[in-house]
Amino acid sequence: MTADTGKSDNKRLERLCGITRALIAAEVTDMEEMGFRHHISRQFNAELEDVRNKVLSMGGLVEKQLADATAALMEGDSERGEKVVTSDYKINALEVAIDEECSRILARRQPAASDLRLLVSVIKTITDLERMGDEAERIGRMAVQLAGREGWSPNHTALPEIRHLGNDVKEMLHEALDAFARTDVELAARVVEKDRQADKEYEAIIRQLITFMMEDPRSIPRSLEVMWAARALERIGDRACNICEYVIYFVKGRDVRHTSLEQVQREAREPK
Amino acid sequence: MTADTGKSDNKRLERLCGITRALIAAEVTDMEEMGFRHHISRQFNAELEDVRNKVLSMGGLVEKQLADATAALMEGDSERGEKVVTSDYKINALEVAIDEECSRILARRQPAASDLRLLVSVIKTITDLERMGDEAERIGRMAVQLAGREGWSPNHTALPEIRHLGNDVKEMLHEALDAFARTDVELAARVVEKDRQADKEYEAIIRQLITFMMEDPRSIPRSLEVMWAARALERIGDRACNICEYVIYFVKGRDVRHTSLEQVQREAREPK
Repeated sequence: MTADTGKSDNKRLERLCGITRALIAAEVTDMEEMGFRHHISRQFNAELEDVRNKVLSMGGLVEKQLADATAALMEGDSERGEKVVTSDYKINALEVAIDEECSRILARRQPAASDLRLLVSVIKTITDLERMGDEAERIGRMAVQLAGREGWSPNHTALPEIRHLGNDVKEMLHEALDAFARTDVELAARVVEKDRQADKEYEAIIRQLITFMMEDPRSIPRSLEVMWAARALERIGDRACNICEYVIYFVKGRDVRHTSLEQVQREAREPK
Repeated sequence: MTADTGKSDNKRLERLCGITRALIAAEVTDMEEMGFRHHISRQFNAELEDVRNKVLSMGGLVEKQLADATAALMEGDSERGEKVVTSDYKINALEVAIDEECSRILARRQPAASDLRLLVSVIKTITDLERMGDEAERIGRMAVQLAGREGWSPNHTALPEIRHLGNDVKEMLHEALDAFARTDVELAARVVEKDRQADKEYEAIIRQLITFMMEDPRSIPRSLEVMWAARALERIGDRACNICEYVIYFVKGRDVRHTSLEQVQREAREPK
């Protein structure tokens, strides 16, 4: 700059230089922020991963409760049934914790697209898992009552069939959680298909119990307990299907609730 | 600027002037954006209001289905029961539509705090409303089967008691929707309290039906249908409570699921 530059121009130049410096500084901050964002995105992924893992832990707990409840029912083991009843709080606590974490992530990270769909799916999935826990608790309670009744036997009418239904439902839940873990839509569609079989088994159990109750009215209270347990298993199967529908929604971005089995299978097969 | 300012300085000045103009332009854009944001916020509020209204419409549909289903059961009106069964799809369609709207708003508006809590509550509320619709459909189906059976009478064992339970549950659902509409946590807590009474009524109905079945085994299939209907009503009452718990969560920011009735009442009374 030459010495004869006017004073006011000098000032103006200085001010503009200040702005330029600010701009350069701003750019630097932006670049730093970009690094920061990269860091955030890694942290965000870790948070989503953590939520997914917690859902799987919760699912594992529900599986355990279901296994214990059906075993208690089959073996007339009231102690084991009681343990199921008193353990349900763990599932509830996990539901509340995961729900809070999802809300925190939604508020802080403002996710979009598949991240958002994952969180919405998780919020719905844990509701179903929690209610499955309630059904397992109900089965545990029935096991306690049944074991306390005179005339309990592992060959009580419909108990072998309930064992069968219980195994199918346990498998459905396990596969639903697998489908969630591996975002496997084809497995999800197969679980939905399996539910048809479970529904048929459930209906056969109910018919069998009705016949038995009519033949031996003294068996009514006992048979009703077996019936409630069968009902609870059937409901758990339905909820495993719900989870599978959320998996398809999360992966494909398409809502397959309230559609036919064929529609679910088509969505699972089609590319996104 | 004097004529003897060096050429390079002149160029520099020009560039800096350009930056200044850009800055000023940027500032103007910012102010425009602020106006735009105000517009967005108004639009956002309208969207939230629209979601709330849709939830209330869906709730109204469920109320109608419940009223029709219980009336069909009481009056042995199989045509009305059939209508309930074939109308359930409307509730399902609303659930899917509201769910999509919530996801769209979450992705676009990235809401925080109470707006976020509202949307999460809505996502949960419509799941419960949809399942209530399923229970109403079940009652409709039972009404059709019962009406087709020999010996149906409005005085069939437990039917008067079911009418009573049905009225209580309808009231609970109506009040739960009111609590949602007016974000009235005290009303929400009262509904949760009412559920205790409904549970007692349900248990009395089951006991009554068991006695009746044991006395008259031929009545078993009929009595079981009445039992399933009672069960469905009891479940609708439970779900009305769920909605009330979401209202308390939305308004107070506190999760009262899996807590005692006393805890729910305390939260409802306490200032936020």
